[in-house]
Amino acid sequence: MTASPNDVRRQAAHALRIHTPGRGFVEITADVERWVAGVGLRLGLLTVFVRHTSASLLITENADPAVRADLERFFARLVPDGDALFRHADEGPDDMPAHVRAALTATQLSVPLVDGRLALGTWQGIFLWEHRRRPHDREVVLHLIGE
Amino acid sequence: MTASPNDVRRQAAHALRIHTPGRGFVEITADVERWVAGVGLRLGLLTVFVRHTSASLLITENADPAVRADLERFFARLVPDGDALFRHADEGPDDMPAHVRAALTATQLSVPLVDGRLALGTWQGIFLWEHRRRPHDREVVLHLIGE
Amino acid sequence: MTASPNDVRRQAAHALRIHTPGRGFVEITADVERWVAGVGLRLGLLTVFVRHTSASLLITENADPAVRADLERFFARLVPDGDALFRHADEGPDDMPAHVRAALTATQLSVPLVDGRLALGTWQGIFLWEHRRRPHDREVVLHLIGE
Repeated sequence: MTASPNDVRRQAAHALRIHTPGRGFVEITADVERWVAGVGLRLGLLTVFVRHTSASLLITENADPAVRADLERFFARLVPDGDALFRHADEGPDDMPAHVRAALTATQLSVPLVDGRLALGTWQGIFLWEHRRRPHDREVVLHLIGE
Repeated sequence: MTASPNDVRRQAAHALRIHTPGRGFVEITADVERWVAGVGLRLGLLTVFVRHTSASLLITENADPAVRADLERFFARLVPDGDALFRHADEGPDDMPAHVRAALTATQLSVPLVDGRLALGTWQGIFLWEHRRRPHDREVVLHLIGE
Repeated sequence: MTASPNDVRRQAAHALRIHTPGRGFVEITADVERWVAGVGLRLGLLTVFVRHTSASLLITENADPAVRADLERFFARLVPDGDALFRHADEGPDDMPAHVRAALTATQLSVPLVDGRLALGTWQGIFLWEHRRRPHDREVVLHLIGE
């Protein structure tokens, strides 16, 4: 999979709006791939950016749902809701833990596009990780540059 | 916020030099936005890169300073200075914790530029997070590509 | 280190194949720099992307190997192999910890290229971090765009 240097001519951007049902993972791989395919480049760089500080992005295994359940349990133990350590709790006991969980994961991810396809591995899915307990409307910005 | 595919013609790079007063957050959003505005692109991708392994980058809430104070307290508890686990302590008890805290957060962040503005959410600020206790001079490299 | 805006004309992609001897760090800085030099751009953006969910990327100190040994010890304590919290253990006690460690670090890193060189700091090295105990063959995709 080596692509020779070639010209760079195009870029595009798009906002995905995602409703989350509360804390947990929402896979967005198919939404991202659909938009990328529509832009129609062969070689380039896709960037995914979440416009929030209490939700984040994660590329993880998308085969066995138990992986996400275990990630959720691990982070719930590592950053407990209602921890007395936290002073900022304006929006409830999951407010500050959401910011910490976002800090420990990713606000932005970039994935190369090669031969017209994202270079994701066989088991890699792109997830929006909602860290608040209540449902939220989230916005994820996509940017693609290449040829 | 959908931008149609367009030509890509320009890029620019710049180094920000930031003096930190010791452990804690220094917001760099305004410095970054000022440089981006000066380059004058409409659509593109901004990358922020910190050239150190004991300081890192974080996009987090920039409204209530208690959020950063809580982040600081959480990381201080998670990665305690002087932990007997650490063998590398050449520069003191905060040496190795600084590397771990940098590993848990970000050395690099990219943010799409859409309609001439960074696609940051309402509450998102870009912060340099100093993990060493003493003041340091840090360098953050900015790169922008687009049209 | 300020580069004036200039034209953007070229991009390239390449896959590195890396054999890991089991859990631990493999430095890939030299491999990445060699490929970047061969493409021959002056100003641009390099992206490194790992196509796996149980290995990750980290930019950390590449001088004293004790730093990596301490990082390894910290993560082994934070995310213990065989933790009873985890239900997903299809591939053994290090299966789920590998996914968590990958989530806490980076699947992708981008580094600006300025004056024909990656903008890495003096002590920064790029590492592939294998989180599984057994040897693996890993694939890391490189993408470079610029002029």
